[in-house]
Order: sequence, then C-alpha cells, then structure tokens
Amino acid sequence: MPLIAETPKAPYYAVIFTSLRTEVDEGYGDTALRMLELAEEQPGYLGYESARDGVGITISYWSDLDAIKSWKKQAEHREAQRLGREKWYSAFTIRIAKVERAYSL
Amino acid sequence: MPLIAETPKAPYYAVIFTSLRTEVDEGYGDTALRMLELAEEQPGYLGYESARDGVGITISYWSDLDAIKSWKKQAEHREAQRLGREKWYSAFTIRIAKVERAYSL
Repeated sequence: MPLIAETPKAPYYAVIFTSLRTEVDEGYGDTALRMLELAEEQPGYLGYESARDGVGITISYWSDLDAIKSWKKQAEHREAQRLGREKWYSAFTIRIAKVERAYSL
Repeated sequence: MPLIAETPKAPYYAVIFTSLRTEVDEGYGDTALRMLELAEEQPGYLGYESARDGVGITISYWSDLDAIKSWKKQAEHREAQRLGREKWYSAFTIRIAKVERAYSL
C-alpha cells in the first residue's frame, strides 16, 4: 500500500479522523489492521493515509457519501467504533469532506 | 494550539497536504514553523492538524476557497512552496476539500 493514496480524478470524498489515544492498547493494533483490510473490501473505497505523532490523523477516501454511510454501518466496523469510543480514544473529530481538486508532485 | 483543531460548524474547507520528505533538513523546521505562524494571521484561517511517521499529513482549515487561494499566493508562502518542491519533499499530494459534516467525541 502506498503511503500517499493514489486516488482518481476529483470529485470524491474524504473521511478525516483526527484522534488522541488513551493509554489502553488492548486489541488496538489488531483491530486497526483488520478495519483497514475490511475497508479495502467495501464498495467505493479509494484509498487510505495515516500518521500519528501525538495526534493521529487517518484519512480514508471514498467514491461517494453512500459508500461512507454503508461503511459506517458495517457490523464489524460498528463494534470497532464502539470499542474505540470506550477504550482507545480519549478524543476524536471526524470530518466528512468532498475533495474538489487535487494535485501532486 | 490544540492537537485536534477546534473548527466552527460546517461547511468550511480543508487543505490536505500528504507528503514524503527528502533527507534534506536545511531550513525545513524553521520554515514549517514560520508558515504556521503566517497561516494563523491570514483571513479565513480556522485551524491546523499535523502528524508525521513515514508519511506526513498536514491539514489546514479555511472558511472558503478565496481564503485558500489568497494563502497559496502569499509571497513568503510562495517562496516556501518553491523550496519545498526543490529540497524538502520527494513527493506530495494536495487535496482541497469542502467539509460538509463533522462530529467529535
């Protein structure tokens, strides 16, 4: 997987997840990896970028809002969201954004 | 400055800058810090989030597209962009996105 997502020509959508972690690691790494695998299987999934130092920023890219809605409601993902709120994150913000233009070096 | 940006109610805009660095550090840290100071002074600036491990993800938030256009053209920022392309980044993608919805824990 490339570190910079290779996304198609705009428009498409981004889910920007900015988070602060608790000190609880139990299950976190395995679940994060599993959610990435699972996301890649979803219709409309376009790519993924992630970095953490202090704050974590994870961005997933999607073809449209329906794809994002379906992914949010996916059963295994819902359970991971619940565990995230309860155990792994002390704070987070999720932003749904429409990518209108993009360019690369 | 909080690690998770405290942005107003959507809609607003995000500039997502995903990058890979070269091994050249000369001037990088000072310029990055100066650009952050300068961005905060621009009309329409709303906030900033950044993390790097391998890939770097920096997101700045803006009230509208005109604010982003003015910032892109700001003289000192243009010079920093030039140095970035020439010295500090081996690859990057910039995405301009309209934040339509947001929620927080």
